[in-house]
Amino acid sequence: MRYLITGISGFVAGHYLEYIFSKNHTIKVIGLDIKEPSLDFIDKKYKKRIIFFKRKLQDKNFLIKIIKKYKPDFVIHFASFSSVAESWHKPQKCFLNNINIFLNLVEALKIAHSKAKILSIGSSEEYGVVSKKDLPLRENNPLNPSNPYSVSRVSQEQISRLYAKGYGLNIICTRSFNHLGPRQSDRFVISSLVRQLVEMKGKKKKVICGNLDIIRDFIDVRDVIRAYDLLLAKGKAGEVYNVCSGEGVRIKEILDMLKKELKINPVVQIDKKLIRPVDNPIIIGSPAKLQKQTAFKPKYNLYMSLKDIIKWWDRRIG
Amino acid sequence: MRYLITGISGFVAGHYLEYIFSKNHTIKVIGLDIKEPSLDFIDKKYKKRIIFFKRKLQDKNFLIKIIKKYKPDFVIHFASFSSVAESWHKPQKCFLNNINIFLNLVEALKIAHSKAKILSIGSSEEYGVVSKKDLPLRENNPLNPSNPYSVSRVSQEQISRLYAKGYGLNIICTRSFNHLGPRQSDRFVISSLVRQLVEMKGKKKKVICGNLDIIRDFIDVRDVIRAYDLLLAKGKAGEVYNVCSGEGVRIKEILDMLKKELKINPVVQIDKKLIRPVDNPIIIGSPAKLQKQTAFKPKYNLYMSLKDIIKWWDRRIG
Repeated sequence: MRYLITGISGFVAGHYLEYIFSKNHTIKVIGLDIKEPSLDFIDKKYKKRIIFFKRKLQDKNFLIKIIKKYKPDFVIHFASFSSVAESWHKPQKCFLNNINIFLNLVEALKIAHSKAKILSIGSSEEYGVVSKKDLPLRENNPLNPSNPYSVSRVSQEQISRLYAKGYGLNIICTRSFNHLGPRQSDRFVISSLVRQLVEMKGKKKKVICGNLDIIRDFIDVRDVIRAYDLLLAKGKAGEVYNVCSGEGVRIKEILDMLKKELKINPVVQIDKKLIRPVDNPIIIGSPAKLQKQTAFKPKYNLYMSLKDIIKWWDRRIG
Repeated sequence: MRYLITGISGFVAGHYLEYIFSKNHTIKVIGLDIKEPSLDFIDKKYKKRIIFFKRKLQDKNFLIKIIKKYKPDFVIHFASFSSVAESWHKPQKCFLNNINIFLNLVEALKIAHSKAKILSIGSSEEYGVVSKKDLPLRENNPLNPSNPYSVSRVSQEQISRLYAKGYGLNIICTRSFNHLGPRQSDRFVISSLVRQLVEMKGKKKKVICGNLDIIRDFIDVRDVIRAYDLLLAKGKAGEVYNVCSGEGVRIKEILDMLKKELKINPVVQIDKKLIRPVDNPIIIGSPAKLQKQTAFKPKYNLYMSLKDIIKWWDRRIG
């Protein structure tokens, strides 16, 4: 079995690689990214099974060549511009990465007559600002994207549906909710909070953050990638699935959990630069469709995730 | 009063220019396009009031410079990739023109702190395949874009709303339904049918066309541009308005009207290349919101439009 994985150097791709190699030792992975993957956490014997190409996905002809040569059974498109906050500052870059490049990929798959199962990863941000009565969000809830990032994700999903319906590509879409887990960049809130608190340890006593009042549905990256794997096996082409925990939690509550766990009580300083022009106060998803289709059950609760993230930052900088 | 008009060489822009000069002789127009506008139909004394720049809209810095220098009161973004059929064949080009370039424009307006009223022109295609019970389509109907062109238009509208809400840009959006009128390219169905029938006149007796069974809401371009002008004066920022007639007509009926008018009875040949991978069988819009906000009333009925289009092709090739 051959996997084509774009954005293979990223946070989620790393966890996905660990998982699929643990399940099947004989798979082959073709990985694409603009930067070399570190893969320290992957067993040596598996690393040999990864063929890596350092290439921009703007190069459609290269994509066609790769797909024709390796005929992947599965394509997972992890490559993306994934920060909501940055999308306000660099909307062009966001659209280039999330629309133009995705279009290149599905065009290449169409031209190469690929029969691969394709996973197109979207975001809970596509729902935008929602009213309480719509919670938890189901896949048929209207989309009301309220930042450049989520506009680009809506387009990606719409393109996926077109290519499934119009050209028979076997694309399955997700709307994945907020990830957390070890190895996530500290550009994201939970990882940033943990890092700041772990760094503190008796030193500076100030934690800098954005809006602590927003409520999000966090799901551990290790559960996310298991859901992806199940969707590739059992998802329906042209359909969209929420990947979420079904539970909403306020960022402030997470900060409180961390303070308690680390026995630390810093001053909280709000950085205005981290507040977005338009923000969604509350996002909670319904995993009902995913569960029904794939019998998915998460393995990590929030507390377990936070402990693992603390452990990871502790090892890195402690 | 200064107008910045992108895509000034196009079909709709031409009609809009005629109209605004007829209303106000002292306006100034800054026009952008990748090709020189012909403007044969514009009075010489008005042509002098148009400053034309032959430039790609990919050049954001140029846009900022132009906006800072001329401080337009109105910005009308006509530049676009406007063919649904071609968007299936050239999706990348479609997205580049309708998303990346639009984003450049609003970014430039934001950076230049422009106070201009901006018209972002979208399409009835954004509604996608709809069920009969939803007709006529109102602005709050869910969007279900079913071709690359309409996906790009949905993004454009979503970007418009973000920049209105997040940055206070004064953007008004339209969902404009099928245009018809003199000077339209024969890449569009009505113009193509009229051209073929006018060319016929006793010669070849075969008309080539795509799906004749689809129902569309056609509105004369001269009514469209009047609606645009009213929306610039009276539309609300961040809002979307259908620009349509409210009447659905089957392409086959139009062909029958033309046959009768021209007293000609050709064989009809369906060209498979003109059939789209996914097509919307029926689109009819509700102009209620536009009428309520602007008191707009169309001046042309379908028969008047068709006669003028026949006259125009007759002069050109008759």
